[in-house]
Amino acid sequence: MLAGIDLGGTQVRVAVADNDGKLVGSAKTRTGLVPSAEKMAEWAAGEARRIARGRKIKAAAIGAPGPIDIQRGVLVNPPNLPHWHNVPLAATVSEAMGCPVHLDNDANLAALGEFHQGAGRGTRVMVYMTWSTGIGGGVVIDGRLFSGAHGSAMEIGHTIIDPDGPLDTCGQHGCLEVFAGGRNLQRQTGESAVELFQAAEKGDREALAIVNRAARYVGIGLINLSNLFDPEVIVIGGGISQSWKLVSPTLAEVLRSSPFITPRRRPKLRRARLGDRAGQVGAVEWARANP
Amino acid sequence: MLAGIDLGGTQVRVAVADNDGKLVGSAKTRTGLVPSAEKMAEWAAGEARRIARGRKIKAAAIGAPGPIDIQRGVLVNPPNLPHWHNVPLAATVSEAMGCPVHLDNDANLAALGEFHQGAGRGTRVMVYMTWSTGIGGGVVIDGRLFSGAHGSAMEIGHTIIDPDGPLDTCGQHGCLEVFAGGRNLQRQTGESAVELFQAAEKGDREALAIVNRAARYVGIGLINLSNLFDPEVIVIGGGISQSWKLVSPTLAEVLRSSPFITPRRRPKLRRARLGDRAGQVGAVEWARANP
Repeated sequence: MLAGIDLGGTQVRVAVADNDGKLVGSAKTRTGLVPSAEKMAEWAAGEARRIARGRKIKAAAIGAPGPIDIQRGVLVNPPNLPHWHNVPLAATVSEAMGCPVHLDNDANLAALGEFHQGAGRGTRVMVYMTWSTGIGGGVVIDGRLFSGAHGSAMEIGHTIIDPDGPLDTCGQHGCLEVFAGGRNLQRQTGESAVELFQAAEKGDREALAIVNRAARYVGIGLINLSNLFDPEVIVIGGGISQSWKLVSPTLAEVLRSSPFITPRRRPKLRRARLGDRAGQVGAVEWARANP
Repeated sequence: MLAGIDLGGTQVRVAVADNDGKLVGSAKTRTGLVPSAEKMAEWAAGEARRIARGRKIKAAAIGAPGPIDIQRGVLVNPPNLPHWHNVPLAATVSEAMGCPVHLDNDANLAALGEFHQGAGRGTRVMVYMTWSTGIGGGVVIDGRLFSGAHGSAMEIGHTIIDPDGPLDTCGQHGCLEVFAGGRNLQRQTGESAVELFQAAEKGDREALAIVNRAARYVGIGLINLSNLFDPEVIVIGGGISQSWKLVSPTLAEVLRSSPFITPRRRPKLRRARLGDRAGQVGAVEWARANP
């Protein structure tokens, strides 16, 4: 058996699958109910054991918000998990589960999930972007996740697309996230991203203008990803991808507007298919590939 | 024996190495003297045979300016080689040499060369940037070149860093190359990049301001490469890297200015070591890895 855990700012999920990656069962709880690495590890190990019904879990992976020290398996200082700074998460979960545990960036593992069981199946080069409160992503090349030398690859939201742009909380000016991340849209408009996108879907002109402007910036991000990774497919997930009909025409239009990215090599844009389950599926797949 | 060819706008080079990648000999000529795929292939095959002294050449690779159709081995429409559009280069060279020939982007193969025998030796994730008339690059991950799904990865010069910036010949606004490519600096100043950088080195204030501005934009490009590829090392080659003392302090300063790229994961900047030979060395290494 294999286990995959997804530790998010609001929820924790655990999935158990057989050695072929077929899901046996899953469970979830609120992050606030398991507010330390030890408590979370205990909960996840208990649920995994219950689902596995005595069959041995031989490997597991866990996705969590970056930045992460992937070699040491440590959560560094995730802004969405303020009480989890410098936590040796891989070791803690490994002890509770009795098997090796790999810690990776949540967006990286979501990318792997979409590659294996979602919108990126069968592609040789797949870029995944999560567009939500923040903007992140992952890339799967020849079936393998590329995480970079320190586990910090694909920080798409923090690439700079206007050096004279506004200052983001990351300390950089004009990164993609300052223009289009849900948290920053909320800061600028006073409305949550959910409210903003709902208003735009109902035809509110002001909301629509803000959404379109954000989508144009994300489109620039897609041009840059195309020019650097030359992917077959870019899969877009995260909360804002739920407004696919609203945003995808603008994303496609901006991407098409680059004559440099010829139709022959222009990547297909696809909406993610696994929703909130992408992270746990990717964690299982990581464990399957690295037993 | 293995052969590596580098087809450039002004020169063509061929190198022959033994099966361990050790150079046996090399030759070069002016591109204008072998002005068709057939003539160039004939010249390269003749030189390779002469250098190999009767020993069989079992595989070869050739680097050429993009865009390239890597699967079909075709030069598409390289701006620097106007007479070589839609040329089936791999097949033509393969026929002349009597062995399989792989065609790849010249910057990709230069990256592979610097990884194996230059400034990127021993790194797990190495990004190579060539800063010259144009700006391109390559990335080597776990010892393997990543060329993208269609051979168009790492078009670093055509990532957009200011959507409201000037129009480049690529048809995009505000790409890195329009701000910092040698050809565009020449267009803006009326001086060749060589003259401009020489003047800056002699302390000409105006030239220095232009060079520093270009280096700042390249620094933004380095931030973006760091956030997407999380490399251990970024190797910088190409003609402008010859002014290393002039440009590298600015590049390092801009990269350090991003608080998001913490010292733990900040890539080292290194000057390329192989100069004009990077392409031929990389081509040999490609042939060695794919015999």
